Amino acid sequence: MKYQEALDYVINKLEELSNYDYASSIIYWDLETGAPKEGIRKASKVLGFYSGESHKILTDHKFNKNLDLLLANLDLLDAIHKKIVIETKKDIENIKKIPLHEYKEYSELLSKAQPVWAEARGKNDFSLFLPYLEKIIKYKQNYVNYKGYKEHPYDAVLDDYEPGITVKQLDIFFEDLKEKLVPLILKINKKKDFISDDLLKLDYSVEKQKDFSIFIAKYLGFDFERGLLKESAHPFSMGLNKYDVRMTTRYFSNDLQPSLFGTIHESGHSIYEQNIGEDIWETRLGGGNSMGIHESQSRLYENLVARSLEFWIPIYPKLQEVFPENLKDVTLDEFYKAINKSQSDLIRVEADELTYSLHIILRYEIEKELIEGKIRACDLPKIWNERMEKYLGVTPPNDSHGVLQDVHWAAGLFGYFPSYALGSANASQIMNTMRDKLDVDTILKEGRLEKIKEYLGENIHKYGKLKDPNEIMEIATGETPNSKYYVDYLIDKYSKLYEV
Amino acid sequence: MKYQEALDYVINKLEELSNYDYASSIIYWDLETGAPKEGIRKASKVLGFYSGESHKILTDHKFNKNLDLLLANLDLLDAIHKKIVIETKKDIENIKKIPLHEYKEYSELLSKAQPVWAEARGKNDFSLFLPYLEKIIKYKQNYVNYKGYKEHPYDAVLDDYEPGITVKQLDIFFEDLKEKLVPLILKINKKKDFISDDLLKLDYSVEKQKDFSIFIAKYLGFDFERGLLKESAHPFSMGLNKYDVRMTTRYFSNDLQPSLFGTIHESGHSIYEQNIGEDIWETRLGGGNSMGIHESQSRLYENLVARSLEFWIPIYPKLQEVFPENLKDVTLDEFYKAINKSQSDLIRVEADELTYSLHIILRYEIEKELIEGKIRACDLPKIWNERMEKYLGVTPPNDSHGVLQDVHWAAGLFGYFPSYALGSANASQIMNTMRDKLDVDTILKEGRLEKIKEYLGENIHKYGKLKDPNEIMEIATGETPNSKYYVDYLIDKYSKLYEV
Repeated sequence: MKYQEALDYVINKLEELSNYDYASSIIYWDLETGAPKEGIRKASKVLGFYSGESHKILTDHKFNKNLDLLLANLDLLDAIHKKIVIETKKDIENIKKIPLHEYKEYSELLSKAQPVWAEARGKNDFSLFLPYLEKIIKYKQNYVNYKGYKEHPYDAVLDDYEPGITVKQLDIFFEDLKEKLVPLILKINKKKDFISDDLLKLDYSVEKQKDFSIFIAKYLGFDFERGLLKESAHPFSMGLNKYDVRMTTRYFSNDLQPSLFGTIHESGHSIYEQNIGEDIWETRLGGGNSMGIHESQSRLYENLVARSLEFWIPIYPKLQEVFPENLKDVTLDEFYKAINKSQSDLIRVEADELTYSLHIILRYEIEKELIEGKIRACDLPKIWNERMEKYLGVTPPNDSHGVLQDVHWAAGLFGYFPSYALGSANASQIMNTMRDKLDVDTILKEGRLEKIKEYLGENIHKYGKLKDPNEIMEIATGETPNSKYYVDYLIDKYSKLYEV
Repeated sequence: MKYQEALDYVINKLEELSNYDYASSIIYWDLETGAPKEGIRKASKVLGFYSGESHKILTDHKFNKNLDLLLANLDLLDAIHKKIVIETKKDIENIKKIPLHEYKEYSELLSKAQPVWAEARGKNDFSLFLPYLEKIIKYKQNYVNYKGYKEHPYDAVLDDYEPGITVKQLDIFFEDLKEKLVPLILKINKKKDFISDDLLKLDYSVEKQKDFSIFIAKYLGFDFERGLLKESAHPFSMGLNKYDVRMTTRYFSNDLQPSLFGTIHESGHSIYEQNIGEDIWETRLGGGNSMGIHESQSRLYENLVARSLEFWIPIYPKLQEVFPENLKDVTLDEFYKAINKSQSDLIRVEADELTYSLHIILRYEIEKELIEGKIRACDLPKIWNERMEKYLGVTPPNDSHGVLQDVHWAAGLFGYFPSYALGSANASQIMNTMRDKLDVDTILKEGRLEKIKEYLGENIHKYGKLKDPNEIMEIATGETPNSKYYVDYLIDKYSKLYEV
């Protein structure tokens, strides 16, 4: 059977590709979590090489001939192979549009840009990072033209993370958030001292935070036999495969929240990756779905689970035990309010649930304008600070707390930020259905977090990339993604918390 | 010019090869220093793949045609390219003898064997490791037949680490050591309480040991911008390239020596790798030379430098400051004697300079007999313990302190152990010449360690693999390698220390 030969050929080549991806991922992980500074000299060349090899495989004539043969015989394939073939074809169509040398140069550029960004942020010196950022933007501007788009150039990068979504839809989505949330935010701004989180900003031993981070990741269901937790400038997760999922967090000796909720957030991503179906883990479908789905899982754990009162009932005493000097006289209710304080502030990853989307809107607008060429990279510090003042009423004291705070642009992740807001909306929608099926509050009160993990595993995680994002949402909630549950949840929660 | 095209082709392919090697090295590093346990499932496949790709490049017809063209035109090449071509040809001749599938399976086997060995050692359970060891030995037995040898099958594996050396030569070398050192060891055994090292076996804070390890590595000249120090079950060094050299050590809270001299030993290896010439670092010649040369550098730093009295004169007060609870009343002379106590004991890496070679002789004999098929892997615990009793008068209480102590066999490193003894001999020979050129004692007393690093850089390190081991020894000492200086040094030092 000719199609069987074609299938073997294609699967074999995709296996090669996964070996290149694995090497690149490990090299990135190493660079982010401890490689010596000068090691980048060779590492960046090696990354460029692997990225070029991947490009070669996908654009190879024989590979494409075999793939096309399979496309013409889709009915003969099982569901998994069918999806692999379709998705690979899509990737190729995108990749073929980018000239090989630009693709390779860009990969090398990114591996160099990230340590420079970290240095620039550390030294509070945007000018160090600027030349790299300019090149990345230039690449992205070329990229959207190569890739093509129907209405707005930014649509082309959005599609990389949330297939099919457009500026037109997002403008409506963010408009809805603005319209319904901003009045509430303004009301709360007037009562900003109604809740204090000072108790979280005392002296918290980093060593104890590390121990508690491991405890909480395990408590949520993260499996340390199949993963690890380290430290990096910007927390992230990396699912090499379901048997090797890595995440990082960061520690501040004068603030408990970044490590605590950073770990919980990344655990959400990582539990997803560890829960991928056994039938697909070694295939091209064996990772998390779109960014909007992935982020729904981290947000669900971070906010809907771990910022609820019920979650802390069984484990707050443990936290008090670890930090008696700060928490022994703090009631659960005071702690719950502190971790939900809303405040217009500077740092996205530390923003509360309510003001979070304004951070995203800021970045969404800036990215659109950069890609369009309406604004220039060198003006970003000024533009950033002006808009922070306009949207959130705060001005960053320096670029480390402003335009340099996120790793995303250094990693070439333009079009990625909107997924965070979409993820939050998806999380609320998923939780809404989960509450129909499970007694979530009782489960949390009784500390049976494995029930949540099982539910999400069964309804979302196990599918990996086997379904489209909208299909996943249909399976998990019976509806396509929308902003309704998110907005309702936020208004309900924060009206009660702030009694407004 | 046709040969120019051939050269470009070959260099380009070797660059590809170096990218595969880089990926494999990073994956090994990751597995050894923190990868999650289950990660091995994919990692071992990936390692097998890269090893197969390297094999493919080296055995490719076109590559070999071009290489042969260069071999026929060696006079047209500069010294660096000439050596690259010759060495690559040698590698290919060896590699061509191994069937591809055996080579790939073996690479996968090794990546699985190492974590199992670590587990077996941790649990003191040889039976866990036995099936892996049996397969590795089987491979080695096939390997020596594929590779071929003139006199003794073990010659074929010796040649992998010390090109050209034979069982015949080593039998003489080790006989000389035995004959001259054993009488001294017997005399010292009778005075075994003449020197006490109890002061090194007190409670030493691991955190402080870590800080001191970093201090001492820097003091010797290790550059942390181009390298790092981590922790692993068995200390090792990995020179990815001169800009990224990694090493590990290990810490015990009740013993200062393993971390201290482990770090110094690995610093010797790593300073070598960091000192490779700028003209060759990116080529196939850009790493350390044979194992006997490499080990001469680690031994030189560990023993001839760091176990001398002069070395500690400027920094012993610093060590006292870090551990006042243990050392404030210990004189420099007492400390010097303690770090040089000679005692027939169980663990090779913790053996003193004098008894060290007996540990090597034991392994050398066992390896010879395993390769010959004279003894079986399942009998190793028994054989090991019997010979330890015979050669050193001690019997391991368990296999963790016996046959399971070294990572080498799990890493497939048969034929490697003799290099340690050869390295020690080379170190003494090199130090002997260095003392003619430099006032080593004054340099050590004044803490000007950069002078030692510069001397070794200029006379040994910068050449990388550009010269053969014997040429390196000729350049550095004017003589071919021999046991004279090593034996003289040991007899002189230990006769004085023990007043025998």
